[in-house]
Amino acid sequence: MFISFEGTEGVGKSTLIVKLHAFLQAQQREVVLTREPGGTPLAERIRSLLLSTEQQEDIHYDTELLLMYAARAQHLAQVILPALQAGKIVLCDRFCDASYAYQCAGRGLSAEKLQLLNQHFVARLPDLTFWLDAPVDLGMQRATQRGALDRFEQEKLSFFSQVRHGYQQLQQQEPSRIKRIDATQSAEQVYAEALQHIQQFDGF
Amino acid sequence: MFISFEGTEGVGKSTLIVKLHAFLQAQQREVVLTREPGGTPLAERIRSLLLSTEQQEDIHYDTELLLMYAARAQHLAQVILPALQAGKIVLCDRFCDASYAYQCAGRGLSAEKLQLLNQHFVARLPDLTFWLDAPVDLGMQRATQRGALDRFEQEKLSFFSQVRHGYQQLQQQEPSRIKRIDATQSAEQVYAEALQHIQQFDGF
Repeated sequence: MFISFEGTEGVGKSTLIVKLHAFLQAQQREVVLTREPGGTPLAERIRSLLLSTEQQEDIHYDTELLLMYAARAQHLAQVILPALQAGKIVLCDRFCDASYAYQCAGRGLSAEKLQLLNQHFVARLPDLTFWLDAPVDLGMQRATQRGALDRFEQEKLSFFSQVRHGYQQLQQQEPSRIKRIDATQSAEQVYAEALQHIQQFDGF
Repeated sequence: MFISFEGTEGVGKSTLIVKLHAFLQAQQREVVLTREPGGTPLAERIRSLLLSTEQQEDIHYDTELLLMYAARAQHLAQVILPALQAGKIVLCDRFCDASYAYQCAGRGLSAEKLQLLNQHFVARLPDLTFWLDAPVDLGMQRATQRGALDRFEQEKLSFFSQVRHGYQQLQQQEPSRIKRIDATQSAEQVYAEALQHIQQFDGF
């Protein structure tokens, strides 16, 4: 079972992942916790290129998108697919939907480009995706409190509004895979809702 | 005018580029010398990821291809397109044809994947491409004499035979753009032949 966690900054993805991890481990499930961009030594180096605020040049949007998919290809081949083949549960902080939300809805790249990359370079989509949704100003307050902001977190609120709208579009297109959870609720309520979806998931 | 230089290791691309650069400068032309993967600070960092022999993991072929195109997107946007728009001549050590030769013919990735990346992420192909062709064992002898081999140069001769065959296929498909030059000739002969092609190029 492959579960991804999506949402703009500061919506509580990490907290939810930690709670679900503890629950699944208590159920004697083998769980792999991972994240994008990243998840392998090389993909983490690509992540550093992407998130660093010390750039000597503007990163072109196409470059950003292709670096994301380079990291993803490595992550899928080295971590996600082997774990799923071994019957493990993969909990992944962000996946393909983030590329649509950030690079297409946020940056304005064409959805067609992304679709082609998904078709040719992504062998497996998540079975279940939790979209933690909250007003972007609330999330940004939380993200700012966490410390220094990365290259994406430094974007303007209007960018995150577009990203949030991108997630909304995806959720409407794929309501059976993507579950919206109101992230203004308490962490306990968010966890309870996510757990219910996992338990309803066919075959769990 | 955008000219790329292609070929397997040790065929004399750098020597030819230096000679042509000197000639064009003597003609009062503004010339930009660049290379792939690389050509901008970020693209050079991607190059390091690609060529390093100290990898903690195997680089998946899809990852390799996407990193090449990420570097290329950045290089096009930051260096090649602005230089061409300013009327400069761009001399580029390797470009898209190398991705076909190394990643498709060499690694076995589908040509369809590459075509899609070219269509969606490469706004401009070279006007003229010199394919310096020599038996792969000869080139590898020269490359080995230069010093430590990078991750590609460490491949087996059979890999470079496939790469060479890839270049041959491309040259047959696009004979008007891609000019084969026999790289077993002297550096002077190679230069004279390349110069003739440049001088014949329409509008030069």
